[in-house]
Amino acid sequence: MDFLYQYNHKKELVNKALEEELGKVTGSHGKLIDSVKYSLFAGGKRLRPILLLSANELVEDDNEDKMHLACAVEMIHTYSLIHDDLPAMDNDDYRRGVLTNHMVFGEAMAILAGDALLNLAYETMINNIPVEQDRMRGYLKAVSVIARASGMSGMIGGQAADIDNEGTDRTEDMLTYIHQHKTEALITASLNAGFLLSSQNSELLEPVIAYGKAIGLAFQITDDILDVTGDFPALGKKPGSDTKNSKLTYPGRFGLEASRKMAKNLIDEAVMHISVFGDRSEFLKCLAYSILERTQ
Amino acid sequence: MDFLYQYNHKKELVNKALEEELGKVTGSHGKLIDSVKYSLFAGGKRLRPILLLSANELVEDDNEDKMHLACAVEMIHTYSLIHDDLPAMDNDDYRRGVLTNHMVFGEAMAILAGDALLNLAYETMINNIPVEQDRMRGYLKAVSVIARASGMSGMIGGQAADIDNEGTDRTEDMLTYIHQHKTEALITASLNAGFLLSSQNSELLEPVIAYGKAIGLAFQITDDILDVTGDFPALGKKPGSDTKNSKLTYPGRFGLEASRKMAKNLIDEAVMHISVFGDRSEFLKCLAYSILERTQ
Repeated sequence: MDFLYQYNHKKELVNKALEEELGKVTGSHGKLIDSVKYSLFAGGKRLRPILLLSANELVEDDNEDKMHLACAVEMIHTYSLIHDDLPAMDNDDYRRGVLTNHMVFGEAMAILAGDALLNLAYETMINNIPVEQDRMRGYLKAVSVIARASGMSGMIGGQAADIDNEGTDRTEDMLTYIHQHKTEALITASLNAGFLLSSQNSELLEPVIAYGKAIGLAFQITDDILDVTGDFPALGKKPGSDTKNSKLTYPGRFGLEASRKMAKNLIDEAVMHISVFGDRSEFLKCLAYSILERTQ
Repeated sequence: MDFLYQYNHKKELVNKALEEELGKVTGSHGKLIDSVKYSLFAGGKRLRPILLLSANELVEDDNEDKMHLACAVEMIHTYSLIHDDLPAMDNDDYRRGVLTNHMVFGEAMAILAGDALLNLAYETMINNIPVEQDRMRGYLKAVSVIARASGMSGMIGGQAADIDNEGTDRTEDMLTYIHQHKTEALITASLNAGFLLSSQNSELLEPVIAYGKAIGLAFQITDDILDVTGDFPALGKKPGSDTKNSKLTYPGRFGLEASRKMAKNLIDEAVMHISVFGDRSEFLKCLAYSILERTQ
């Protein structure tokens, strides 16, 4: 399978759909729109929407609702990056190779651009609820999963714990809580939502979630590793941010070599779980392996 | 009619429902929950949820879905206040008689508390979608109205225009855009959503929206007036914030006396519109008049 070709094809579809959604916005303020578009089209990997689309394709070939949810998770991810980068948070100047939102538009507009993207994610999901009963049921379950993962029991809870524990002597339990909520929650929810959209089979949902948890944690570990070993041109942001903010990381806690090994084991585990879908799991298997080769 | 008794009764119901919603949150971060509760239970007037409940009572006595939407609009309103007060925005130290969120919990946690409340508003609306078809239809329309009014075409658009035009020579058109979006949008949407929940009668929706637009603008004008004439104990925040931030206001543009007259005319207009509902409009009429007597 030409994984890269397929990945980039999905990415293009997501980009096009995001542009369409932004094109529907009327009566807003010009600079706010510019600020939102700046971060939304700054060359993201589109990992979460692609996970959502691919999880859906484990059970259905051509679901017409999946792209709205895919756009929503990318909007939620992008808003979280804009707010995380703020001076009051991680205070990062670069992201995806360009200046962060607040460096270009100022802090106030960056806060509002984040708010706008979070709200737009929900507007997109709510305005595209399918009318047909069966489709609606799965769709609303998927929306609910995304909402919980994004909120104070999910991503925002993780970010709050991260900020609140900066510079403190973090326990391993705290490190786990932060990563499970800050990163893994939305990754797993994207897969979960994509699957729920077309299937209510809870036995098959289990391996999808197990895959999500494993790649979510592997993704976070490689993120921590890249913050130590990465360089600016590839990474698109300044490495060393974790050290600067006194964050406990996997390499910091276990060393680089052991962290690499942990990531590798998690990916093997993810691949094992998703194999239950046979041929249909090919893309998600390749995607899992690609996480080990991340440079950004 | 004992308007004050009824208002306070509704307010207590809203407070109780908000406490119940917060009680359902599990697996979040302690300090984040504290920060969210601090602002949500800081003694707000609960104007928007009460408008939503009352607009619903224009057509139905005991709708069981209205309180979820009422909680959501109050959460959205509170998040917008937390973010508006931030140092990067209006930089206000007091709100509702107590220190603003960021003064107590720090900027990072205040940003996250705002994010959490916006997300929780949607979680609340999404997790309580009624199953019965007819109820569901009205409910989802109401959610959609709230979502649009809160987003970049509504409140966030207004706040962005407000921030972006600070210290500039604002035109009257810009003043109107800002107020229509920043304040009026969510007030009108609350009424609109409450009504849509139980009625699809578009002829009757018109006077409800006209009432909302009129009281929304009157509310903003009295807000501007109080920023000039109010004192801290009653107002609960420091007056003079608009002058400090070089904002164009109604008293600044038209003078105090003319502004009072404008507010009075708008309230008369609102009362006229809502009278079409006869006896059922009594509460909303009294509420409109009470805006002229605001001290906070």
